[in-house]
Amino acid sequence: MIERRKTNSVSVGSVTLGCDWPVVVQSMTKVATTDVDACVRQVEELTAAGCGLVRIAVPTKADTEAFAQIVNQVKVPLIADIHFSPARAIEAIEAGAAKIRLNPGNIKKHEDVVSIIEAAKAHGAAIRVGVNEASIRDLKSGDTSKDSRVELMLDEMKKYVAMFEEVNFDNMVLSAKSTDTVRTIEINRAIAETFGYPIHIGLTHAGLPVDARTPSAVAIGTLLAEGIGDTIRVSVAGNPVEEIRLGREILSALGLIEKSGPELIVCPTCGRCQIDVVKLAEDVRKTLQGIDKPVKVAVMGCIVNGPGEAVDADVAVCAAKGKGFIYAHGERIATVEESKLLEAIADEIEKL
Amino acid sequence: MIERRKTNSVSVGSVTLGCDWPVVVQSMTKVATTDVDACVRQVEELTAAGCGLVRIAVPTKADTEAFAQIVNQVKVPLIADIHFSPARAIEAIEAGAAKIRLNPGNIKKHEDVVSIIEAAKAHGAAIRVGVNEASIRDLKSGDTSKDSRVELMLDEMKKYVAMFEEVNFDNMVLSAKSTDTVRTIEINRAIAETFGYPIHIGLTHAGLPVDARTPSAVAIGTLLAEGIGDTIRVSVAGNPVEEIRLGREILSALGLIEKSGPELIVCPTCGRCQIDVVKLAEDVRKTLQGIDKPVKVAVMGCIVNGPGEAVDADVAVCAAKGKGFIYAHGERIATVEESKLLEAIADEIEKL
Repeated sequence: MIERRKTNSVSVGSVTLGCDWPVVVQSMTKVATTDVDACVRQVEELTAAGCGLVRIAVPTKADTEAFAQIVNQVKVPLIADIHFSPARAIEAIEAGAAKIRLNPGNIKKHEDVVSIIEAAKAHGAAIRVGVNEASIRDLKSGDTSKDSRVELMLDEMKKYVAMFEEVNFDNMVLSAKSTDTVRTIEINRAIAETFGYPIHIGLTHAGLPVDARTPSAVAIGTLLAEGIGDTIRVSVAGNPVEEIRLGREILSALGLIEKSGPELIVCPTCGRCQIDVVKLAEDVRKTLQGIDKPVKVAVMGCIVNGPGEAVDADVAVCAAKGKGFIYAHGERIATVEESKLLEAIADEIEKL
Repeated sequence: MIERRKTNSVSVGSVTLGCDWPVVVQSMTKVATTDVDACVRQVEELTAAGCGLVRIAVPTKADTEAFAQIVNQVKVPLIADIHFSPARAIEAIEAGAAKIRLNPGNIKKHEDVVSIIEAAKAHGAAIRVGVNEASIRDLKSGDTSKDSRVELMLDEMKKYVAMFEEVNFDNMVLSAKSTDTVRTIEINRAIAETFGYPIHIGLTHAGLPVDARTPSAVAIGTLLAEGIGDTIRVSVAGNPVEEIRLGREILSALGLIEKSGPELIVCPTCGRCQIDVVKLAEDVRKTLQGIDKPVKVAVMGCIVNGPGEAVDADVAVCAAKGKGFIYAHGERIATVEESKLLEAIADEIEKL
């Protein structure tokens, strides 16, 4: 079990972020915000996939107006993504944003940041206070070496947090984003050590799904395994539902959400293997599709590791030469020839 | 930069494992060991993909005989995978195995383990000393709760290591395997704290590629990010070359091997985006195929984060409405209409 880092609790509408609450997977809509129907449809696809918070960009006044309509048509708390405009931030909060994302470095006047905070207080909205590696580069001219960036980002975050604490605002979530896996891990460890607020983690601009998967799993997974992170977003250039799928895979691997479906243990095979384990495993995986119970099935290629894994599985097959042994709940119950193995496993799964 | 955990150095033929040496990705052949030609072919495919050590199963005497032939036909150091038979271990060492994998719990007589160690000493072979969660279950009858397993595995490992140290053998690598991501992380942290030997890490029986990717990246990535791990193996039921690809992706994400090819930063897009960034990124990715230099290209959907990422990229495009700005080495050099963007980016990549 992972011990989560102690944080205070932050209310984001009906969702609470912090160490006493589940880690929330979030994503962002990728259709024009002004296309209210398309946006609502995408919010619903995301929530159906397990998305707990949805962020929506509101660069123009037309977008905050659309945002107000979207808020009324969906149940999930929405986050408004703000960049340069204090007016958009206040409009979004007034429109019912449960949270806004704000990089204070992008808002030029301090008094504008304070106005936004006051609006958030008045409406009970949370604020994600962000810093991006890409935007801290100009802070110290001449000192833009990559080694110093983690330090620069932490310094910048300290200034931002002080700005919020000065006006007694603490309903905030912190985030520091980089495209680099190691710097993402380092800056978030530093933030976790320095502050007590919940942390939003993710690797920014990670790329197309094929490129984004591994670095995202490594960065987000490492931090979560160290107890750091209260909400996550996997950034993928593509369908946002894929972001949720990957995010949930990471949480599931770490036991931070319950395994909702079947689990398929398969030995990688080796020179010992005397049947086509990969084909059998692929067929068993198809059989398992549509089952939404946490069934554990093991497909093992030989008698070396097979019986051991079989003990932990609900159903297992342990292959030998041209045949296999079927296990149910750790007990060997039958010997079946290779061509009948799939059927025998399917029967046992059926019985569960 | 990741600070590796201090270890001693272990020689595996021409490869050295330990904190002063690169983390080595390894895999295993999956064809019959007695089919020498097929085995040699697979070893060569693996090394071409970046595999630094190849393991081969030798369950029978015919396999150790084949192993002797394979050793003579390949350059990469080979590891013999031993299970129940002390005879196979000694035959493999005599045949030229640079390392053997041994779970001492599977060898019944203590004197047999000692004979194997003496053979390894005589031939300068290394030994991977392993314990598998699946095989420690029967150690304490009645105490098989999952919480106690990490403790049981560590206790078992202590006994094994003592057995080797008693006869003054220290050319060993330790490994503790589980199918569970969190227990894999926990047992390896415990081993790292207890011993000074290099560690082999991996998630065992992780499944088909689609299921294995995320948990493997999380487990192996977390440990490596904490400085733990000197050789890794991603277990995938399928082509072993896929294991190498995934292993190298994990190392690359953490800067533990140099990025050998192009890197493509892509914004995930949002409601701000006014061109088809995903399509453009996919096309750019195709353009980058075949380039083996570490070129960094960014495809960004709007002017919010675009210019920031462009500064770090060799070539970048930052999209606006129906057009895009092209950057080279952080400088904005052209404004190009949407239909000509791919060509303009390809031209800049060509120039590098």
